[in-house]
Amino acid sequence: MNALTIWTYDWVPEGPRGFVRDLRLRWACEEAGLAYDVRTVPFDGRETNHLARQPFGQIPFLDDGAVKLFESGAGLLHLARKSEALMPLDPVGAAETLQWTLAALNSIEMVSVPWWFLTVTGARDNQLTEWMGMRLGQLEQVLGEREWLAAGRFTVADLLMADVLRVEKVRAFGDRPASEAYVARITDRPAFRKAQADQVALFKAADAKRRAM
Amino acid sequence: MNALTIWTYDWVPEGPRGFVRDLRLRWACEEAGLAYDVRTVPFDGRETNHLARQPFGQIPFLDDGAVKLFESGAGLLHLARKSEALMPLDPVGAAETLQWTLAALNSIEMVSVPWWFLTVTGARDNQLTEWMGMRLGQLEQVLGEREWLAAGRFTVADLLMADVLRVEKVRAFGDRPASEAYVARITDRPAFRKAQADQVALFKAADAKRRAM
Repeated sequence: MNALTIWTYDWVPEGPRGFVRDLRLRWACEEAGLAYDVRTVPFDGRETNHLARQPFGQIPFLDDGAVKLFESGAGLLHLARKSEALMPLDPVGAAETLQWTLAALNSIEMVSVPWWFLTVTGARDNQLTEWMGMRLGQLEQVLGEREWLAAGRFTVADLLMADVLRVEKVRAFGDRPASEAYVARITDRPAFRKAQADQVALFKAADAKRRAM
Repeated sequence: MNALTIWTYDWVPEGPRGFVRDLRLRWACEEAGLAYDVRTVPFDGRETNHLARQPFGQIPFLDDGAVKLFESGAGLLHLARKSEALMPLDPVGAAETLQWTLAALNSIEMVSVPWWFLTVTGARDNQLTEWMGMRLGQLEQVLGEREWLAAGRFTVADLLMADVLRVEKVRAFGDRPASEAYVARITDRPAFRKAQADQVALFKAADAKRRAM
């Protein structure tokens, strides 16, 4: 048994495979060379079957011995403290990484997830579109001027920002060549490809068991 | 000059006074007994006049010598590492604090801010209301069972969650007695009251100068 355990669902439908948020933690562990196990909670009844562990009924959560964490952003920042591959040790670089990790969550994802939700649930006139365009436009400016968000190198902030931006409908929002190149470059990293393939394989393997139920 | 400088706007209209997000950093410094200066960027032209410092045109941002941070959540986590008053030193308590700080930002505020935005901009049928009700209901369960979110004591996670929940329209959402008691209790702390009074005083003092312009 490895020290680190990443918890996810035992199965999800095909649509979200490759996008479920345990991928963020798998990817970080792969980048850092940290060994980890993956364990699961049932997808059926997920609204209430693991509230003692995650009070919003979501995944992922992370075990690191006595330390237990939910919120993918918290898990990433916890893992980042273990490996310079994810976050520089110097205070200035670490602060930049922290800042852009939070920006991915709270300046971009705080807009992109509700915008996506309104889009897929069929709001005729998505009132978050202007806000979405503004934020993605501001980020495009940033990504047009640099290769990495923080500290002049790959960090966990890039991992998270790329994961937020790679959602299909977000990726298709407007013409943002620098952002598109950034997403393509970062999701071409071997650690991402392994994490994604492993997640898809786990859910696919569960199909047969589920059909037999 | 103090080591810490919190940056905010030089003025805002009456409506948001007492709610502008530099308050989060002021409040944290007051809780921790950390000395700080407050400096300002112009409210007029804020969309573009400080993009070099904050690429989304927002405030607050924080200077700590060579370390410079934007994103209020990043600033809070940075300050929390300076004082046990904001975050316990033990790894389990620190991880709980990190987890609930991220939950305030990404499980609650990610819903409450877009919900608020759709409400004030007059969406006839706010399609985020069900999601909002679900998340606030889950949080109500948690707050019905404990006094503090993390580590059995006040932490920066309570500061942030209370700041997210104290927004008037959020506070008025549904009947959530445990959440209401939590907000009332935490915003009654002397550090919050001082931070809020100082922010309101700064913006009020700027009224006269603005009228003379």
